[in-house]
Amino acid sequence: MTASESELIRRFFRGLGAPRADVALGIGDDAALLDVPAGSELVLTTDALAEGAHFLPGAAPRSLGHRALAVNLSDIAAMGAAPTWMLLSLILPEANESWLAEFVIGLDALARSHDVALVGGNLCRGPLSITITLAGCVPRGRALRRAGAHPGDALYVSGTLGDAAGGRELTHAGEALPQPAQPRQPSQPSAQQQLLRRRFEYPEPRIALGAALRGRASACIDVSDGLCVDATRLLEASGCGGQIDLARLPLSDALRQQYGTRALQLALGGGEDYELLFTADASQSAAIDQLAERLGLRISRIGGVRAGEGLALNSSNADPVTAAAPAAFDHFGR
Amino acid sequence: MTASESELIRRFFRGLGAPRADVALGIGDDAALLDVPAGSELVLTTDALAEGAHFLPGAAPRSLGHRALAVNLSDIAAMGAAPTWMLLSLILPEANESWLAEFVIGLDALARSHDVALVGGNLCRGPLSITITLAGCVPRGRALRRAGAHPGDALYVSGTLGDAAGGRELTHAGEALPQPAQPRQPSQPSAQQQLLRRRFEYPEPRIALGAALRGRASACIDVSDGLCVDATRLLEASGCGGQIDLARLPLSDALRQQYGTRALQLALGGGEDYELLFTADASQSAAIDQLAERLGLRISRIGGVRAGEGLALNSSNADPVTAAAPAAFDHFGR
Repeated sequence: MTASESELIRRFFRGLGAPRADVALGIGDDAALLDVPAGSELVLTTDALAEGAHFLPGAAPRSLGHRALAVNLSDIAAMGAAPTWMLLSLILPEANESWLAEFVIGLDALARSHDVALVGGNLCRGPLSITITLAGCVPRGRALRRAGAHPGDALYVSGTLGDAAGGRELTHAGEALPQPAQPRQPSQPSAQQQLLRRRFEYPEPRIALGAALRGRASACIDVSDGLCVDATRLLEASGCGGQIDLARLPLSDALRQQYGTRALQLALGGGEDYELLFTADASQSAAIDQLAERLGLRISRIGGVRAGEGLALNSSNADPVTAAAPAAFDHFGR
Repeated sequence: MTASESELIRRFFRGLGAPRADVALGIGDDAALLDVPAGSELVLTTDALAEGAHFLPGAAPRSLGHRALAVNLSDIAAMGAAPTWMLLSLILPEANESWLAEFVIGLDALARSHDVALVGGNLCRGPLSITITLAGCVPRGRALRRAGAHPGDALYVSGTLGDAAGGRELTHAGEALPQPAQPRQPSQPSAQQQLLRRRFEYPEPRIALGAALRGRASACIDVSDGLCVDATRLLEASGCGGQIDLARLPLSDALRQQYGTRALQLALGGGEDYELLFTADASQSAAIDQLAERLGLRISRIGGVRAGEGLALNSSNADPVTAAAPAAFDHFGR
């Protein structure tokens, strides 16, 4: 795609995202030049979406533009940092301009809403994949880390869990339908199905929450691969064990209604929630409740940290939905 | 590849590259934390290698590890910056450990030789592609840019041109041979063929030259897509025209011997040279000669900058090899 790479980058990617005064030189040279504020650490992360692994052929390009940035924003949120600049490496089977236009709408909207500028891009031809590297800044020494939880800390999670995994099933089922020769009457998704699909296709990274947790949370991770997997990562990094009370898991009404007894399984292992899972000392309890109210975001205390190792799932107070939990954990626990 | 991604990253990527004191937090959390020195600007670039676009199936993984970083180092060199940290997004068809081990050898060796630490990684399953984002630092306001050339400046290029393009043909011809049922006697490449292949498979980014050109060059770009294309980019960014004297193009003996009259065509349009193309005021002439001597690197004055626009190829002093030049330029000029 070398012949037209420069032209496509000029048309679709120059000016993408938010304008930022700290971009001394953006797209159009060999590299970008950027100002990191004094007193800040630079935060860098990269994540990719590849066809087959993260989405099916024919996935909506607007959603892909959103998701490719959202998964990176979620990592920046988990560090308690403010996102700043991104670089995009896009591998495309062909220079499909209508696809690119939709992709850019999804990417640009999310970038602008989080004040992120696109400062570097690379296009080439091949099987579809989207890699974004995202930079951010955080006051020196104040970033949240996975390591830092202590026995006695409470374990919290934002939002609701499992919706994205449920929405992924619905989205993939819709995309897998064969294209009919005659236009067919599309089946009307219910409001709850639309909500779940939206949670998968347009996840909302918890940037404001992450920043507000600096100085409050003792450890933090984003829930990308599923609650059990990511909770285990946080606990292992902190050298602790912990437990989750299944009855406390935040499940949306939409998920319960759509998936019934599978809702808990999706919440424990479905992944792609992009909520923040964090720990905090008991003294922070009231402050975290106030934070939830201020942000208009549900924050649930779902368990706690203890000495030792391993993650225990506690179903003693479980409602009937939790009966499937141990099997679900075995199935998804990796 | 989620199930084993963490394990593969731990085994193959943790500790890859040079240890650096400015990495406050490397691989193993949601993002890396890094210290940009006061008085420095951050430099960021990203580039990808994709199977089919940049290499053929079966390409040597050690060379791919080297090239994936080299193409990014070359961009950092063209800014006159010092490379510091990289992030790797690797999409692999399968968790092939012998492939990964070889890939890491190539990547690690080049990273260490330029003091680059790997601080983030992402692995997933799909058709092979390698995206690296590379960061660097440069004293504030002193980076080299494409814009900055003035009429009257001389135009220089480092090293020799066309070798990589010649080597690419030889490498691809070798890789395209069908696998024989019986082990065949491999044909012995000549020393000059080995040299050309090495220039393609293991390009040497001109980091030391780029840094030494700060304050001397008026504009700089790396030659990745071919001399004509990249010279045009530099001149357009500077709002100038220019000319190249074909007789002055630095062609290696190996390229002339292997490709005869095609050597000039490869030098003008072949690409993947990863040499630096730069402009400088006439007052810098002696300093640049001294620089070439100090670095042990050929630096050739191949033309000049003038008012107006467009790149002219001047063959008035051409030796017989240059007879094919205008056609070559038409063929590759994009």
